[in-house]
Amino acid sequence: MPLMKSWVASANDPSHPFPLNNLPYGVFSTAGADPRCGVAIGDMILDVTAAEAEGLIALSDIPLFDVPFWNELMEEGPAVWAALRERLIALLSDGAAEREKVEPLLVPMDAAELHMPFAVSEYTDFYAGRNHAFNVGTMFRGPENALPPNWLHIPIGYNGRASSVVVSGTDIRRPWGQLKSPDHDKPAFLPCRRFDIELEMGAIVGTPSDGPITVQEADDHIFGYVLLNDWSARDIQAWEYQPLGPFQAKATATSISPWIVTKAALEPFRCDTPAREFELLDHLKDCGPMLYDIDLEVTMAPEGKEATTIARTNYKEMYYSAAQQLAHHTTSGCPMNTGDLLGSGTISGATKPERGSLLELSWGGKEPLTLNTGETRSFIEDGDTLTLKGAAKGDGYTIGFGDCVGSVLPALENPYAR
Amino acid sequence: MPLMKSWVASANDPSHPFPLNNLPYGVFSTAGADPRCGVAIGDMILDVTAAEAEGLIALSDIPLFDVPFWNELMEEGPAVWAALRERLIALLSDGAAEREKVEPLLVPMDAAELHMPFAVSEYTDFYAGRNHAFNVGTMFRGPENALPPNWLHIPIGYNGRASSVVVSGTDIRRPWGQLKSPDHDKPAFLPCRRFDIELEMGAIVGTPSDGPITVQEADDHIFGYVLLNDWSARDIQAWEYQPLGPFQAKATATSISPWIVTKAALEPFRCDTPAREFELLDHLKDCGPMLYDIDLEVTMAPEGKEATTIARTNYKEMYYSAAQQLAHHTTSGCPMNTGDLLGSGTISGATKPERGSLLELSWGGKEPLTLNTGETRSFIEDGDTLTLKGAAKGDGYTIGFGDCVGSVLPALENPYAR
Repeated sequence: MPLMKSWVASANDPSHPFPLNNLPYGVFSTAGADPRCGVAIGDMILDVTAAEAEGLIALSDIPLFDVPFWNELMEEGPAVWAALRERLIALLSDGAAEREKVEPLLVPMDAAELHMPFAVSEYTDFYAGRNHAFNVGTMFRGPENALPPNWLHIPIGYNGRASSVVVSGTDIRRPWGQLKSPDHDKPAFLPCRRFDIELEMGAIVGTPSDGPITVQEADDHIFGYVLLNDWSARDIQAWEYQPLGPFQAKATATSISPWIVTKAALEPFRCDTPAREFELLDHLKDCGPMLYDIDLEVTMAPEGKEATTIARTNYKEMYYSAAQQLAHHTTSGCPMNTGDLLGSGTISGATKPERGSLLELSWGGKEPLTLNTGETRSFIEDGDTLTLKGAAKGDGYTIGFGDCVGSVLPALENPYAR
Repeated sequence: MPLMKSWVASANDPSHPFPLNNLPYGVFSTAGADPRCGVAIGDMILDVTAAEAEGLIALSDIPLFDVPFWNELMEEGPAVWAALRERLIALLSDGAAEREKVEPLLVPMDAAELHMPFAVSEYTDFYAGRNHAFNVGTMFRGPENALPPNWLHIPIGYNGRASSVVVSGTDIRRPWGQLKSPDHDKPAFLPCRRFDIELEMGAIVGTPSDGPITVQEADDHIFGYVLLNDWSARDIQAWEYQPLGPFQAKATATSISPWIVTKAALEPFRCDTPAREFELLDHLKDCGPMLYDIDLEVTMAPEGKEATTIARTNYKEMYYSAAQQLAHHTTSGCPMNTGDLLGSGTISGATKPERGSLLELSWGGKEPLTLNTGETRSFIEDGDTLTLKGAAKGDGYTIGFGDCVGSVLPALENPYAR
């Protein structure tokens, strides 16, 4: 599929992240106005809440966009998702008959503040990148026992904390936590010293389910994707995670990019999961290409200084697709709801510059990175800004995600002071 | 404190679970009517939604009970919680001036169906019973390494799945899942063979927090308690839980008792946590009695047959209080919300008949239980009904919880058939 032309000129630049082919969904506000739903088109945002209020968009008997989140559309299901996309394309295409009515509803993106695009119901984080699991396993258990015995048979995951999911641009406060240095007998309560990122994609559940669903059904339930940074306190994690998994180490914050890129926009970029070492059980088997060819990048910028690209990889490095993860999530009968967010797990390629966490990039702190500024880093220092970027490259166009950015603030001096 | 007398005669029986001293909060419906808020008093339920609508209860400028859950009251905080309790005691006390207005708002409990008493925001399950952790650790790692090194220093917990929390009386469908028998090379997708209960208390977060809170503050944030059965698929758990903890093994269902017993009702039963082997770090230190002396019991009844009491223990067996668990939960800065539910972890006493799970009672299936019917059980069989009971014994009165009941249905023949 080539670039679809829009009458919004900036959207026609082949390298612009938000052409008519994309149409990602977000929530924005402008000075003095309440947050509302919008769709990105070039350098502009179409105010979808206003477009619905003025009758330009009419998908349902009741309004879907009178709330500052996309969950009500998500609940409507695939037919309505397709109808909205079709209608937006009609309104924004080059030569659109209704251009005059639509133009006043465009807001320059520069003038907008972006908010959480959807209400997160529950958040699950997976561990489905093979290189990441192998790297972490090698550091902890040696290369012979790097992958746990279950890893090649099920997408390992754990429940995270929905209340801590924040939108890109939210500052992240370095957490305190209980940790134990290898050279001490007893734990202490201290600010985290090994604060890290995890480069992930987030899949958003659109329609609910109540009972086991197949991989194909799971794919149909997914509404769209965001970039996701699962901030991780490695020293807190090391002390707490046995035997029940990560808990407070992952509960400070998880940042997501502000625009939901829909499955429809990503359709041309579908690709297969990698070859399987063991055949998967029937209920998890691939049934079509359900990963996506999305280039990913991480940059790190010390406070007030230039950014260095510290990792480049691709979403197709995953061993399990989001559809397989969602299908596994329902095997127990676990009800899934509109707004559930599934983190892919850290995405790392095969070589060192493709690793999606500082834990892997600095090999547990043993091989610090050197930034373009000349500074070195094993983990995040106060004031550092970490940015995830993602883009699928089409035939004369780009499907961008909008950056997922977070700056790390120093730990509070006394977290209990009021 | 002695029994407080009510004009509802059944509430004055010293062994009745719902005297005026208790006043637990639930949601009920009667034939043909929508679910609404109610408070249990003896064999009756006072329709609190109706009492508010008629002006007998007026705590806020906006109605708090026009929705079928107690979250709106919970958000109001301790002063309003106390005001409601005071008002209910005034309305229901022996000799109450407004008895004539209140009497028509009573519904016989026999005629009511009970629903989820609150909307669960997120669900966390802890592992804070020392005997349970020791028993399970002994089975898996031997008695020398039974407790993980962190266990005596922090309340170990993991995030569970709020969408799977159900009210007492809901049937539980035996799940399918991926599991691996020790005598097979590869895993298989099968119905769970080692389906189990976990006898727990659930603490309900009333008021939200955003940042670390102290143990005393955490106690102030807790609204009340329920009985909680965290249904557990032990064979699925054994295969999946390394390295990130239990996931699908705990996602089929968690049952709670239908009545929220308030902290105020439990006040006379506060007791201390046990002696500490290691001094806790300051932010987790006890600062007053924050456990409760509540007798607990589990019964098991094969389909259509009499029930056998299979375990008796007490909530005071916990090593960490719910307040300590909640304080730990916030150390990372994790935001906590109204309606968050914290499972205590399985409660087991020191001796065999005090164990709160079949895994411990049958020692992993090696020592099957014999029921009063003559049947034996290692784990749950289809048709079995499991019931948790809880009661605090006061001076001439009882604070009961209302049973937490679930019957196990056979696994679906094909979980993907539609």
